Amino acid sequence: MASPVSPPRGMRDFLPAEKAKRERALGVIRASYAAHGFDEIETPVVEDFGRLHSGLGGDNEKLAFNVMKRGLDADALRAAADADDPDALADLGLRFDLTVPLARFYATHRANLPQVFRAVQIAPVWRAERPQKGRYRQFVQCDIDIIGEGGILAEIELLTATLAALDALGLEGCSIRINDRRLLIGMLEAFGFAEAEHASVLITIDKLDKVGPSGVVEELRGREATPAAVEALEAYFAGAPAQAAGLAEAEIAAALPAGVAPDAVAQLAAIGLALREAGVAGVLKFDPFLVRGMGYYTGTIFEIEHPDYSFSLGGGGRYDGMIGRFLGEEVPACGFSIGFERIIDLIDEPEATHAEAIVLVHDKAADPTRLLALKAQLVARGARVRLERRTKNLTPLLDRAAAAGFTSFALVGRETTDAAELDLKSLSA
Amino acid sequence: MASPVSPPRGMRDFLPAEKAKRERALGVIRASYAAHGFDEIETPVVEDFGRLHSGLGGDNEKLAFNVMKRGLDADALRAAADADDPDALADLGLRFDLTVPLARFYATHRANLPQVFRAVQIAPVWRAERPQKGRYRQFVQCDIDIIGEGGILAEIELLTATLAALDALGLEGCSIRINDRRLLIGMLEAFGFAEAEHASVLITIDKLDKVGPSGVVEELRGREATPAAVEALEAYFAGAPAQAAGLAEAEIAAALPAGVAPDAVAQLAAIGLALREAGVAGVLKFDPFLVRGMGYYTGTIFEIEHPDYSFSLGGGGRYDGMIGRFLGEEVPACGFSIGFERIIDLIDEPEATHAEAIVLVHDKAADPTRLLALKAQLVARGARVRLERRTKNLTPLLDRAAAAGFTSFALVGRETTDAAELDLKSLSA
Repeated sequence: MASPVSPPRGMRDFLPAEKAKRERALGVIRASYAAHGFDEIETPVVEDFGRLHSGLGGDNEKLAFNVMKRGLDADALRAAADADDPDALADLGLRFDLTVPLARFYATHRANLPQVFRAVQIAPVWRAERPQKGRYRQFVQCDIDIIGEGGILAEIELLTATLAALDALGLEGCSIRINDRRLLIGMLEAFGFAEAEHASVLITIDKLDKVGPSGVVEELRGREATPAAVEALEAYFAGAPAQAAGLAEAEIAAALPAGVAPDAVAQLAAIGLALREAGVAGVLKFDPFLVRGMGYYTGTIFEIEHPDYSFSLGGGGRYDGMIGRFLGEEVPACGFSIGFERIIDLIDEPEATHAEAIVLVHDKAADPTRLLALKAQLVARGARVRLERRTKNLTPLLDRAAAAGFTSFALVGRETTDAAELDLKSLSA
Repeated sequence: MASPVSPPRGMRDFLPAEKAKRERALGVIRASYAAHGFDEIETPVVEDFGRLHSGLGGDNEKLAFNVMKRGLDADALRAAADADDPDALADLGLRFDLTVPLARFYATHRANLPQVFRAVQIAPVWRAERPQKGRYRQFVQCDIDIIGEGGILAEIELLTATLAALDALGLEGCSIRINDRRLLIGMLEAFGFAEAEHASVLITIDKLDKVGPSGVVEELRGREATPAAVEALEAYFAGAPAQAAGLAEAEIAAALPAGVAPDAVAQLAAIGLALREAGVAGVLKFDPFLVRGMGYYTGTIFEIEHPDYSFSLGGGGRYDGMIGRFLGEEVPACGFSIGFERIIDLIDEPEATHAEAIVLVHDKAADPTRLLALKAQLVARGARVRLERRTKNLTPLLDRAAAAGFTSFALVGRETTDAAELDLKSLSA
């Protein structure tokens, strides 16, 4: 029978083994980002309702969990009913991403932050999506952002720091697809799509991986996109353009219609060069059809992929118009987000933190003073120690201890007072 | 001028230095509790409204931030207005403590937990209190709880683990006051207070530290408590009973009216004995007037104090009736909570995590490829590295870097390509 008592819909509890694995993985990510000069910050889990719903969050704003004002009286409820406006009853909301809070944080604290600010945020966000396998209503995001750097140094540092973190997690075989919004727009212009069509054409091109070139062309025809432009795109597809070219300037240019956004091509090539020099170019591929959903990107965009998985493991890009919104000015910004909830399922259990982890199995009637003394001796020598009351059948107790990372156990005898007398037996997981 | 953009009322952002200090302190606490055999768990930040407001939370339930149902229409709003019932519009609420979620977690997962479950929870809670100095609407609690152990082994393990954590934080000079609810009740009975008066008399006795014996007596007279009982209490106070006795059985008995709850006295003495054997008895004091606010305690209660501070740094006790509530049965439980927000202000900055932390100061025009290569070389040798664009006046930049824990800096020359050529200079904080 399923338990009648559950966590809220779409949310999860973490039992000890899973919680320990998550904390260790987050520790590895934290240490890696710190080594690369990023600074961790924290904001409250809620933001003021108006700022959370200011338009920066796109479609995610509709998924916000909103917090009711305290002390609402019948008049306030009636006024909201008359106006058919439930939002009037909320003054806060749980954040649905870490970017809106970062923009608010930057506006609040800019005077106390360095000119170029490298931020790490590792924290939960909440979205009232329909729960389904692998999609949760509370989940952790790991974001790094560089604010105030308009040059490609930002992209380079983000990419190397992210690759270092994935490497430290032991997640081998990841690669990063990279593109630039300006190349996408330039390509659409070269084909002859009208500016008003760009957003919807990009939504269709984003499905290329799933429906293939003919599916994209068919969908655009069905939606009555400019016919000559659709034909130009079809002809381009017929030339079998690379979807994973190298990042040399000539390779990038060759994968695009002639003459598209040369500045953006040169920048992408410079990013490729810097990473090649640092020995990480092998995992970077230029993908002229990488779109990424969020409309706020203004330049470079990137996405982490792994050959064994059809879904992306994270992504990011440059979004120069957004961070300065609450300040009323434009501030360059570029960010990269690791999909922690996806990655945590792919990585192996990292090393246990204590070399020695001991379970002391004792009778119910055992003298607490003596048990405590034994435990204290073992803790003092650096072990992790748990007392367990003896059960009739020892096997499930020992199995659970092994699964929890304990390495050995001992039955505490009635007279044992010195830990050196304990007969430690190995536990195999 | 104050920034016009702030975090929500009563809540805080954490800038890099403070965030790093908090994470390091939490890491020390986590490691200490893990060594003592406690297992960390995590629950969602929200619980279903009905469970959060089931009475387990006492007065804190009134302080809950409640989450509005999604997709409310005008009819739902009107029905709530007609019933003058704003709660009908909420289906979730932010947790106001970690005990209600623990009771829910235990009910959900009992089948997968050990017979005696030692839980660590380190997580934020939310209370809509009036903000004031040192009191926040989002704050972190560090709770350890032992569920399923009815004997004093629970109290002993909680006390030693807590003292070890405080010690590991470098917080010297803490002591723990200890009492037992059964002794308090026995004392009130010995004086002759009626059972119906007990709760309110305890609230008054809880003010002893602030108003003194005469203040307590005066308040009880003003509230028309049983006159003979108030006289008995006054006479008892006149005998100048110890407020910080030792934990030997005779010392405990001597601090109480004759014959009060001998079982509880013997238990407290046994706890004292076990801790004395473990070498930690010096910091434990029996305080017959320790009350602790929460009405759910059923046995031992304890509170951490420090001679330099008038407020308590944490506390806990046995609450056998509560954890099993969602299961419909009684489960023994005992817990201890460290007041993290108070403690974090008292501890010194723990050691930095990287022995070498280097700031590379570069010109705006510096070649990104070269900067990245230098940074990569230093990261590879174990350093934490940050790039900083040169400012006209270097002093504020270097001061900020020193405050952020960086140990040295170098100006990156136009030709430098090998980290070995860098002229590293020490940064003093």
